[in-house]
Amino acid sequence: MRARIDEVETRGRIGSAGYAEFTRVRDGARAAFAEAVSSDPERIALTHSTSGAMNLALGGLDFAEGDEIVTTDNEHAGLLEPLAALVRRRGVVVRVAEALHGADPLDAVVSLIGPRTRLVALSHVLWANGRILPLREIADAAHAVDAPVLVDGAQGVGAIDVDPAALGVDAYGGPGQKWLCGPNGVGFLWLADGFEERLEVSAASYYTRDFRSEGAPFWPGARRHDGASLSTGGFAGLTAAVEFRRQLVGWSEGAAQMADVRARCVGLLAEVPGLTLQAETPGAAPLVAFTLAGHSAEEVIELLERSGVLARSLPGLDWVRASLGYWVSDSDLERLAAALRSA
Amino acid sequence: MRARIDEVETRGRIGSAGYAEFTRVRDGARAAFAEAVSSDPERIALTHSTSGAMNLALGGLDFAEGDEIVTTDNEHAGLLEPLAALVRRRGVVVRVAEALHGADPLDAVVSLIGPRTRLVALSHVLWANGRILPLREIADAAHAVDAPVLVDGAQGVGAIDVDPAALGVDAYGGPGQKWLCGPNGVGFLWLADGFEERLEVSAASYYTRDFRSEGAPFWPGARRHDGASLSTGGFAGLTAAVEFRRQLVGWSEGAAQMADVRARCVGLLAEVPGLTLQAETPGAAPLVAFTLAGHSAEEVIELLERSGVLARSLPGLDWVRASLGYWVSDSDLERLAAALRSA
Repeated sequence: MRARIDEVETRGRIGSAGYAEFTRVRDGARAAFAEAVSSDPERIALTHSTSGAMNLALGGLDFAEGDEIVTTDNEHAGLLEPLAALVRRRGVVVRVAEALHGADPLDAVVSLIGPRTRLVALSHVLWANGRILPLREIADAAHAVDAPVLVDGAQGVGAIDVDPAALGVDAYGGPGQKWLCGPNGVGFLWLADGFEERLEVSAASYYTRDFRSEGAPFWPGARRHDGASLSTGGFAGLTAAVEFRRQLVGWSEGAAQMADVRARCVGLLAEVPGLTLQAETPGAAPLVAFTLAGHSAEEVIELLERSGVLARSLPGLDWVRASLGYWVSDSDLERLAAALRSA
Repeated sequence: MRARIDEVETRGRIGSAGYAEFTRVRDGARAAFAEAVSSDPERIALTHSTSGAMNLALGGLDFAEGDEIVTTDNEHAGLLEPLAALVRRRGVVVRVAEALHGADPLDAVVSLIGPRTRLVALSHVLWANGRILPLREIADAAHAVDAPVLVDGAQGVGAIDVDPAALGVDAYGGPGQKWLCGPNGVGFLWLADGFEERLEVSAASYYTRDFRSEGAPFWPGARRHDGASLSTGGFAGLTAAVEFRRQLVGWSEGAAQMADVRARCVGLLAEVPGLTLQAETPGAAPLVAFTLAGHSAEEVIELLERSGVLARSLPGLDWVRASLGYWVSDSDLERLAAALRSA
C-alpha cells in the first residue's frame, strides 16, 4: 500500500504507465478475491465492502409487491438495511427464519421457501456465534422454486473453506478487511456462471463496459458489476494480504488452524466461573459468543480492553463476541480467560 | 495515509481507540468535502467516487415508463451509464441537449425541460473542454416543473468556485482524486437541505441509521446516504489534501490562479502551427481541448508523453485534453507547446 501511494504521488494516475499500473492493481485484487473463494477472476466483481456487494446484487434484481425474500434472524445491517429498503420501496415481504437459536437452521429456512419466494438472502456464517448455514441444501430448496441465493460471506471468506460454486449459490459477497486481513474499502461479489446476466447492472459506470471493443459491450463475466474508481491502495493491500496468507499458512490449513484455536478457546471459556457459551455449535467458524453472569456485555468488553483484548458486543443481544484466527496464540487465549476470571 | 496504515496495522480496527479513530477519519473527510463546496458537513454523504454519487442519487429516485431525464451531449460514463440502465430497466426517456458544440447551452438544456421532465442530470463543467454550465438558470427552469437537478461535479469541485446551495441545485457529486488532489476511492454527494428526505436511501447499510439512538432513526442530513466501509486511508488522504490546498493557496485564489494558467495555455497553444482549440469558451474551467492537423489524438498523446507531458484523449471525439492547475508552471506550459510544435 505504501508503494502504491508513492507510485501515484510521484508518477501520477494517467499516462501509459499509470493506466497499466491501475489495471495491474485491479486485476491483482480480482485474482486475489477469486483465490480466496476457490474461483476464477471472471466470477468476481469488485466493490468497496460486503454491504456494497449486497446492494449491488439486490439492486440488480427486480421485485414486485408481495414478492418474498427469505432471510435469517442473525443478519448484519449490510443485508438487513437493503432488505428494509426493498420493503419500503417495493412492498417486498421479508420472511425471517430462526437460525440463531433454533435447533435446525436448515429446516427453519427451508420451511419459509415457497411459491412467492423470489430470493433467499442470508449469511454463510452467522456473525453472532459462527454457526455455519448449510448453503448447499438451502440452495437446492431455493432453486426448486427458481429463487436465487445471495450470500453475505463477511464471516465466511478466509475463516472457513469457501467455494460458492460447489455450494450451488448464485451470488456471494465478502470484504477485504475481516478474515482476509486486508484493508477496508475493498470487497467483492462472486457471481455464479451466467448469473451476471440475470442480474441487471445496478451501479453502472465507465467500468461497466469494454469501451475498447466495437459497440462497447458489457465486460464478460462478473466484471460488468464492478464499482467505479475504488481504492487502488486498498486493492494493493488486499492482494498483498492474500499472498501473505497463501505463503504463510494456505487456505485450508489456515481454516483448520482457526477451527483448532476456536476449540481451544471454547475449552478454556467453559471453565470460567459464571460464563455461558451462547449457541455453541460444533464445527463453527472462529467466532465465540458468551455472557458473563453479573456483567453486561459492554462491561466485559471494557474489562477485556484493559487487559489488551479487543472484543465486541452484538446489537440486540447482550453478548460478547471473540473473533479468533490462526494468529491467536495460546497465551492470547489465556489472557482472555484470565481477564474473564478476574471479573 | 501512511499514518493511517500504521495505525490500523499496529493497533487494529476495533476497541475504543480504533472506533474513535475511525469516526474521526470519516468526520474529517466529511468536513473536508463540505469545505470544498462551501457547505456544511451535514449536507455531505460519503461515497467512493463521482460515479458512486450519481448512482446513489439516481437509485434513490423512482421513475416510471415515459418519465424524462434531461442531460447533455458531453457527459461522462459515470452519469451516462446509470442513465442507460434507467432506460433499460424503467423505460425512462433521456433527452440530450447539445451543450458541447451549441452556441447557447442554457437554451439547449432549458428547451428540453417540459411537463414530463422528472430530473435534470448534467455536469457542472463539461469534461471535454471545461465549459461551465449555467446551473442556477437551469435549476430555475427545472424547478418550475418540479424536477430536481443532479450535478456531476467531477470537473467542478476544486477547479472553480463551487457552491451548490447558491446555484440552487438539489444534488452535487464529486471525487477526491481530481481537482482536490486527493487519493482515489473517495467521493461525495452533496444534498440540498431537505433533499435527503426526497431521496430514498439506495445503498443502505449499518451506516444508514444512528443505532445508538432509540428506534435507530436515519442519520440526520445527507449522512444516511453514506456508503458502507469505504477506504479510511482514502479519507485520511483526502482530508490532508484539502488542508494542503487551503493552506497553500485557498479556494477562490486557487481557482483564480487556475483560470490564469488556462488563459496562458490557450495563448501559447493558439500560436502552435496546425493546432485548433476546440470549443474554446472564455471563463471556462482549467481544461483545454485541441486537435493538431495531420495527427490523431492518440499520436499527439504519445508524443507528449515522450516529452514528459501527460494528457488524455476523449472518447468519441478525436481531441487531446490538457488538464491544468495552479501547480502548472510556465515552463510546464512551454514544454507542452514545444512538444506540439515539434510534431
